[in-house]
Amino acid sequence: MREVYIVGAGMTPFGKHSDKDYYDLGQEAVYKAIKDAGIDHRQIEAGYVSNVKAGMAPGQKVFKKLGMTGMLIINVENACSSGQTALNLAYYAVATGQYDAVMAVGCESLTRGRQSGEALAPDQDDIEGILGNVMPGIYAMRAVKYMEMYGATEEDLALVAVKSHKHAALNPYAQYRNLVTVEEVLASRKVAEPFTLQQCCPIADGAAAVVVCSKDKMLQLGAKGVRIDASVLVSGKFKNEPSDMTIPEISERAVNKAYKMAGLGPADIGMVECHDAFTIAELLYYEILGFCNKGEGVQYLRSGAAELGPNAKAVFSVRGGLLCMGHPLGATGVAQAVEATWQLRGQAGDRQIPGLKAALCHITGGGVSGMDNAACGCHIFTV
Amino acid sequence: MREVYIVGAGMTPFGKHSDKDYYDLGQEAVYKAIKDAGIDHRQIEAGYVSNVKAGMAPGQKVFKKLGMTGMLIINVENACSSGQTALNLAYYAVATGQYDAVMAVGCESLTRGRQSGEALAPDQDDIEGILGNVMPGIYAMRAVKYMEMYGATEEDLALVAVKSHKHAALNPYAQYRNLVTVEEVLASRKVAEPFTLQQCCPIADGAAAVVVCSKDKMLQLGAKGVRIDASVLVSGKFKNEPSDMTIPEISERAVNKAYKMAGLGPADIGMVECHDAFTIAELLYYEILGFCNKGEGVQYLRSGAAELGPNAKAVFSVRGGLLCMGHPLGATGVAQAVEATWQLRGQAGDRQIPGLKAALCHITGGGVSGMDNAACGCHIFTV
Repeated sequence: MREVYIVGAGMTPFGKHSDKDYYDLGQEAVYKAIKDAGIDHRQIEAGYVSNVKAGMAPGQKVFKKLGMTGMLIINVENACSSGQTALNLAYYAVATGQYDAVMAVGCESLTRGRQSGEALAPDQDDIEGILGNVMPGIYAMRAVKYMEMYGATEEDLALVAVKSHKHAALNPYAQYRNLVTVEEVLASRKVAEPFTLQQCCPIADGAAAVVVCSKDKMLQLGAKGVRIDASVLVSGKFKNEPSDMTIPEISERAVNKAYKMAGLGPADIGMVECHDAFTIAELLYYEILGFCNKGEGVQYLRSGAAELGPNAKAVFSVRGGLLCMGHPLGATGVAQAVEATWQLRGQAGDRQIPGLKAALCHITGGGVSGMDNAACGCHIFTV
Repeated sequence: MREVYIVGAGMTPFGKHSDKDYYDLGQEAVYKAIKDAGIDHRQIEAGYVSNVKAGMAPGQKVFKKLGMTGMLIINVENACSSGQTALNLAYYAVATGQYDAVMAVGCESLTRGRQSGEALAPDQDDIEGILGNVMPGIYAMRAVKYMEMYGATEEDLALVAVKSHKHAALNPYAQYRNLVTVEEVLASRKVAEPFTLQQCCPIADGAAAVVVCSKDKMLQLGAKGVRIDASVLVSGKFKNEPSDMTIPEISERAVNKAYKMAGLGPADIGMVECHDAFTIAELLYYEILGFCNKGEGVQYLRSGAAELGPNAKAVFSVRGGLLCMGHPLGATGVAQAVEATWQLRGQAGDRQIPGLKAALCHITGGGVSGMDNAACGCHIFTV
């Protein structure tokens, strides 16, 4: 396997952009990534495009607008893990020598032509979903169980959102950039006990793109690259069988494979993008991804270890996470990689993590009825 | 790159199966392919799953039912080329040494819970589509142009369907197994001038799966393998610019790459599965895929060269083609490979092509408004 680098990164701001379709957003991200890489677009040999909701041939529509016709284009879908799926294919296409320069692109429009939430409503034959077994309900059950097992409080959950908003306030690409207090988070509308609205990631539209290439190509371009040290994608179950729904088996397995592939461990990682679709998720991932022991997530958070600042160990959700960015399904996994690239290059402006050397991006998809055999992606990047 | 083999093939009959969903069909195909390969399902390291219409995480649902959890699963979409896209990923995953044994699966349900044709209706914002610029209309324009340029007649077009029905009558997996005459084809309901109903591929549900592995793994299994000598996937435009809509540029480019990759040419090929979604398409592909000169497609057909029998050169659409199988979008590309595998192994029963040594499978996707930067897959298989 050859060394593989991200040499260009671009994205749109995330938010409600119903004036644009996913391919408008996608082409903006692609254009920015290509410009950032300083690569002639005709040198891009393949495009792996992640999208969940758009229907047929989304990648063709994205690249067509930029005149990038002829190359291999593969559209991928893996629920919330779609973006890291595109990145995984891009990584292996270069690592194995199939291509020297490719792109991974994620793009999604969840608001265009739809009522709020319609894009994520359960299918008409999804009986469990119609009865409430949808993502907020499932994560709420995990939260209740976690609170019961480890004595975490509603205030502890709210603190995750408070921290994410602090980070998002520093990020011009974030959807919600306001600061919030624990009291405000808890006072927002109830969604699924114990979650209030501000503990659930919002709907969003957005796109992100990276140029992925070999070391030789990077040197030839004179580009500043970020190395992909691990690219892992697995399927499995969200929860650990038989009973502990606070241990996401699929994430534990994926991250351990990623650490092994990179020859790194949690102590080496200074930045983590995780699948913080709900506040409880980030607490669980402090533990499962190896940054503290089981049941010590709240302590990790309250110590400031996950937050930009003097006590930072591994900063979680530095761009504001899914909680403040929003979660345009197909775009999220690639947007995580864009943030990691900017941070590792020292280009993250006010939210820069000082002296960052290694970043972990994690995402998991599926997990509801019929899909509990889901997908989990983990990538580790270094400079 | 390592040698890559198909060592197991399975599929469902194609037809209207609205009593089953795509994952029921998919798991049947996967089960049959695994059984055919004689491989322990735990040795399958990755699944590349093609589907167009089902929504989130279709592959996870297919494999979950068989207990095949944990492995990498990637869902792909490339319009009608989706199935060959899955096969292309499976090929490269093994060829590059990423995995030793993987599966490519295609599955699609177009009738379940839908009115006839609803699945393929144009989007509400596809103005060109609503005005008639959908597949039958587009291929009809190509037919009219071809007839004008080369003097082909409506009877010539109908003869393609007559031949496909002759082949399908021998294939228990085909949707329409009745023999038809030129008169009957021309007397069926008009769809888009000059096409009558029997010149257009029908809606179908179905699934197909292949086990793809390295030479070492094949020898270890003691399986009878079919070698994949070329695996090509490109994007581009359906028609040749600036003006000749009878020359599908994307197919010409893809097949020439495939011939080069395999070190073979049309004279070596005894069987062709092409994207015969409409009768005119097969005539065009005789020419573009290199089996006769431009404008001589009718002559090739009338000579019996494309038909099972004493005058066969390269038999086209031996399973009955899209015209008689139907076209369950995500399944078709993999089903073509299943037929090639059976034929090359001499297991095709009454429709066996005698002494077959090499087969070409071709498919093209997209091509309507907004998607004319489409996908084309070509695979060449040998024994």
